[in-house]
Amino acid sequence: MPKKVVIVGGVAGGASTAARLRRMDEDIEIIMLEKGKHISFANCGLPYHIGEVIKEREKLLVQTPQSMEERFDIDVRIQHEAVKINREAKVVEIKDLQSGEVYQESYDKLVLSPGAEPIKPPLPGLDLPEVFTLRNIPDTDKIKNFVDEKKPSRAVVVGGGFIGLEMAENLHERGIEVSVVEMMDQLMGSLDYEMAAMLHNHLRTKGIDLHLGDGITAVEEADGRKIVKLQSGRTVKTDLVILSIGVNPRTELAEEAGLEIGSSKGIKVNEYLQTSDPSIYAIGDAIEVKDLVTDRSVRIPLAGPANKQGRIAADNICGRKETYKGTQGTSIAKAFDLTIASTGVSEKTLKDLKWDYQVVHTNSNNHAGYYPGAVPMMIKLIFAPDNGRILGAQIAGYDGVDKRIDVLATAVRQEMDIYDLQELELAYAPPFGSAKDPVNMAGFAAGNILNGLVEPAYWQELENIDPEQTVILDIREEVETQLGSIDNSINIPLNDLRDNLDQLDPQKEYIVYCAIGLRGYIAARILNQNGFSKVRNLSGGYKLYKAVKD
Amino acid sequence: MPKKVVIVGGVAGGASTAARLRRMDEDIEIIMLEKGKHISFANCGLPYHIGEVIKEREKLLVQTPQSMEERFDIDVRIQHEAVKINREAKVVEIKDLQSGEVYQESYDKLVLSPGAEPIKPPLPGLDLPEVFTLRNIPDTDKIKNFVDEKKPSRAVVVGGGFIGLEMAENLHERGIEVSVVEMMDQLMGSLDYEMAAMLHNHLRTKGIDLHLGDGITAVEEADGRKIVKLQSGRTVKTDLVILSIGVNPRTELAEEAGLEIGSSKGIKVNEYLQTSDPSIYAIGDAIEVKDLVTDRSVRIPLAGPANKQGRIAADNICGRKETYKGTQGTSIAKAFDLTIASTGVSEKTLKDLKWDYQVVHTNSNNHAGYYPGAVPMMIKLIFAPDNGRILGAQIAGYDGVDKRIDVLATAVRQEMDIYDLQELELAYAPPFGSAKDPVNMAGFAAGNILNGLVEPAYWQELENIDPEQTVILDIREEVETQLGSIDNSINIPLNDLRDNLDQLDPQKEYIVYCAIGLRGYIAARILNQNGFSKVRNLSGGYKLYKAVKD
Ligand SMILES: Cc1cc2nc3c(=O)[nH]c(=O)nc-3n(C[C@H](O)[C@H](O)[C@H](O)COP(=O)(O)OP(=O)(O)OC[C@H]3O[C@@H](n4cnc5c(N)ncnc54)[C@H](O)[C@@H]3O)c2cc1C
Ligand SMILES: Cc1cc2nc3c(=O)[nH]c(=O)nc-3n(C[C@H](O)[C@H](O)[C@H](O)COP(=O)(O)OP(=O)(O)OC[C@H]3O[C@@H](n4cnc5c(N)ncnc54)[C@H](O)[C@@H]3O)c2cc1C
Ligand SMILES: CC(C)(COP(=O)(O)OP(=O)(O)OC[C@H]1O[C@@H](n2cnc3c(N)ncnc32)[C@H](O)[C@@H]1OP(=O)(O)O)[C@@H](O)C(=O)NCCC(=O)NCCS
Ligand SMILES: CC(C)(COP(=O)(O)OP(=O)(O)OC[C@H]1O[C@@H](n2cnc3c(N)ncnc32)[C@H](O)[C@@H]1OP(=O)(O)O)[C@@H](O)C(=O)NCCC(=O)NCCS
Repeated sequence: MPKKVVIVGGVAGGASTAARLRRMDEDIEIIMLEKGKHISFANCGLPYHIGEVIKEREKLLVQTPQSMEERFDIDVRIQHEAVKINREAKVVEIKDLQSGEVYQESYDKLVLSPGAEPIKPPLPGLDLPEVFTLRNIPDTDKIKNFVDEKKPSRAVVVGGGFIGLEMAENLHERGIEVSVVEMMDQLMGSLDYEMAAMLHNHLRTKGIDLHLGDGITAVEEADGRKIVKLQSGRTVKTDLVILSIGVNPRTELAEEAGLEIGSSKGIKVNEYLQTSDPSIYAIGDAIEVKDLVTDRSVRIPLAGPANKQGRIAADNICGRKETYKGTQGTSIAKAFDLTIASTGVSEKTLKDLKWDYQVVHTNSNNHAGYYPGAVPMMIKLIFAPDNGRILGAQIAGYDGVDKRIDVLATAVRQEMDIYDLQELELAYAPPFGSAKDPVNMAGFAAGNILNGLVEPAYWQELENIDPEQTVILDIREEVETQLGSIDNSINIPLNDLRDNLDQLDPQKEYIVYCAIGLRGYIAARILNQNGFSKVRNLSGGYKLYKAVKD
Repeated sequence: MPKKVVIVGGVAGGASTAARLRRMDEDIEIIMLEKGKHISFANCGLPYHIGEVIKEREKLLVQTPQSMEERFDIDVRIQHEAVKINREAKVVEIKDLQSGEVYQESYDKLVLSPGAEPIKPPLPGLDLPEVFTLRNIPDTDKIKNFVDEKKPSRAVVVGGGFIGLEMAENLHERGIEVSVVEMMDQLMGSLDYEMAAMLHNHLRTKGIDLHLGDGITAVEEADGRKIVKLQSGRTVKTDLVILSIGVNPRTELAEEAGLEIGSSKGIKVNEYLQTSDPSIYAIGDAIEVKDLVTDRSVRIPLAGPANKQGRIAADNICGRKETYKGTQGTSIAKAFDLTIASTGVSEKTLKDLKWDYQVVHTNSNNHAGYYPGAVPMMIKLIFAPDNGRILGAQIAGYDGVDKRIDVLATAVRQEMDIYDLQELELAYAPPFGSAKDPVNMAGFAAGNILNGLVEPAYWQELENIDPEQTVILDIREEVETQLGSIDNSINIPLNDLRDNLDQLDPQKEYIVYCAIGLRGYIAARILNQNGFSKVRNLSGGYKLYKAVKD
């Protein structure tokens, strides 16, 4: 059993390690170093404090140095920065940032949880005082004070990941007109394009101005305002800029000490979360982890993994062998009324990796349609064509999205397949779900594809249809077509299909579509069994197609 | 491939079978017999229509005979009752309930989904027109008309299962004073007593009058009102009575045909859902199924299983072998603001079966405490002491209960253990969860018990404490004790514990408690490691204890 553990970083990973260590062992000397003024704060709540959703600043401070000392007998040293590790001597060099004094502290085990740094590219104007990044309490104070005092009317958020989204929403809530600039052609890179398209549309209806596929090149000043210049040549006037284009792991300390750095630039650790020096553990945003599905080395800077890794590192330090098996990137974000979530691998990653995969989109209500307040969600399920293993899932919707992504995250982690989804016995009463839950439904639809009952078509294919060869068959009710339809499609409502088969040429190819894919599937089954051999059902139906086109 | 399938029963199981059959095969002749006037209605929505939460009656009719005919080419015959099965001839005798005519219909395969019948014991007065049961649309119409027209001011609901609860709430919403009479000492038999206690307290605060551990003996008339007489001798005045004391499977048809009936009195089926006659399938409330955890034969009359069994029966009929693996009794009910849910086996069942099991209660917020609207839920996790397999879970709380029970239902079905729960990577952002989700937390707390880090004590044990031997140690803050405390407990706040160990006798036994069990665990760890060898932490803390005592 070690006698003395030093922890670098006092927030998600670091504080979790400290607390668990103490519960495991009353006698270890535990020193927790934090270069900032706060420990154990709610990083994830910061945007919501700026938006005044979380009104009291103190709520962000989950623990204080005093409370950690009282409860856990931890020697908490804020404004103390670990500046060097001497591995041979097992000593950390520490700088007291208030006094400037540098001193040494020995360790039996060292835990690194230094987190990550917001990326700030070397572009002109990014050092202006109106350009902010958000990582900690001082950052939050700065942005909030700026908003409170300067009452800006326009903001540009650069980077459309979840922090960017949350900032866009929270600044909007403060009455600010917000533009989001994103280099990729979509927001929320963990989603595939068509799922992100629903998010884009929702943000636009809320009045958020999107600049997709466009990067920032500079921030300039003019007439007391800032001008954000974009690669496209466009410019956006603004009063403040939030940079949220991602984070870099804080690896300097580890690198200087000669610890191994992985291919994804995070600190390399083994399954016990030990670095290349077995006396030094590393956790959180600073490390690279194994992607649970693809086995690749990736960085997944999220709080759930950081907290759990802290607990596992503490256990290992105390001699209770625990392994960290990997991360699956489960994430969720609220964007105004919409919720978007994902787990596992995306289609675009699988495409890059040249893996075989199969996709289905289903659209189900969060609960029984006859019970008031039912709202739809679109689920994208990605699975292996050979054995049906679930590789990833993405959902866009409202209430109940978080529930389904958690069930699917469990499925990904347990290496479940789509047939397992069909069998899940989930809790059903009208206010909560349906006798066939959306997750069951996704399993059914996926199973029908794997079993060869129906072949799917995808929105991407509709670009290059040769009308001589392929008929786009709209089987919605006539009244539904008034909401728009796919170009060059012909309409035969599903219930009339059996009686109108003679109007259709069985030699041709068919892409059948309805609103979401359910009736399209029924139509495809009817056609299949009546001598039409080349029929496919548009996955996600007109709803998904329209989301992409809008 | 069969040419002709006859289905008995046109609602959850029957209509699901019919729809899937048609999707599998365009050519089968499908006849669906329904003795009532409606098919495919939302049984589960009926209480909410009476409560006018679901305003439009048509919403309850998910499909009509016409829509089933148009879309699925099903020969739907309402008010046609199957009265006899001639298995040798493969013929069903059918009575047209309008004309009285009896005729025969041959089948290649027969599917029985006749459902269940509300239990109506042979007690005096239960035939009075003011005594109702609720199973279908006519029942609903009768109750709703009675409420609309007679404007009753008092109602007695007999039976405290989920239908009873839903009726209590919905009648209350109509401005009626409601009493619930239940023979057991608790409502919702799928829960254990302490979890049901939270429900009892919640209902009482809503003004529902509970008579637990008391049965009805008769309904009498007096002064234009009804008098419900109870075994205890008490009487309750009322204007209407809802009988919801459970259902009996409708097995007459099967029994008369000589089909095997199981030990639990449901129709016996194999894993393909075939009865003892392989040409006859049976599904839904009428059958007995395997309890997925205990392997016992049980009846679980719920819509999810019925619908899924319908689909599986259809597949098997069409030659696609699919098995039904069993039911785990996942259920959920809204009771005013409270949600209660369970999956897997209860502690009382395991006790009856003399299985070894271990229990932990945890109490976590549905989402990050610093984000507005966080509300607590109490989770009871029941697991195997040898390998940690999850045997059952129960939750009482508000928002987010449905999510956690679904994750735990997935865990039960996949035979996951408590260590798997610790590792689950669930979606976290402040509006949706916590970095350590309540499900992870239950896994941690369970793991600590199995690993010997802490020993739990339970509320039941506090009855017979010998103060000479056992100290009840309250480690809450002094201010918290003003909300009440356990008799004969002494108070040393957790943060003062390390400094006051000398006041405690290490020879004695200790039961430590805090509000919910979290700090009690920390206190137990401190004591354990300071020479106190007989320390236990009260599972669920004072909150659970108080719920039971209230
Ligand atoms: C605005 C925002 C919103 C977020 N929202 C979510 C969300 O909704 N869901 C989610 O899962 N995740 C979210 N995250 C990510 C999550 O907060 C991080 O993944 C998590 O905090 C990482 O934990 P960590 O311990 O690795 O790093 P941190 O929590 O950042 O802690 C690292 C600490 O180490 C200190 N430190 C660094 N170097 C040294 C040194 N040499 N000496 C002393 N101290 C040092 C730093 O000052 C810092 O306080 C969000 C992050 C931010 C910034
Ligand atoms: C008020 C209420 C609320 C409920 N709430 C929920 C809930 O929230 N969650 C949940 O999971 N479950 C709930 N249920 C249970 C669920 O509705 C049943 O489990 C499900 O409907 C069972 O399906 P089934 O096909 O076996 O029977 P049913 O759906 O009852 O269908 C059987 C049909 O067969 C017909 N029939 C019977 N015998 C014959 C015959 N000889 N010839 C012709 N027709 C015949 C009957 O008239 C009946 O319409 C609720 C039930 C009720 C009554
Ligand atoms: C708060 C913080 C210091 C962690 O402290 P912690 O004590 O490990 O976490 P909690 O207070 O949630 O307590 C969890 C412990 O209580 C136990 N527990 C919880 N409920 C219990 C109950 N009812 N009965 C018994 N034990 C219980 C758990 O098992 C766990 O103990 P273990 O790890 O030894 O198994 C750390 O998470 C932190 O700094 N958080 C803020 C920063 C952050 O996470 N940011 C990112 C997200 S915004
Ligand atoms: C409505 C009822 C007739 C069932 O009809 P159903 O057609 O099987 O069910 P749904 O309309 O939900 O459609 C499900 C089918 O659509 C498919 N599907 C759903 N969404 C899809 C999509 N987006 N793309 C492709 N296929 C999709 C599913 O795979 C499934 O088909 P499968 O079973 O062949 O795999 C029956 O459930 C019923 O009578 N319900 C009311 C009674 C009841 O259940 N009561 C108890 C609860 S209140």
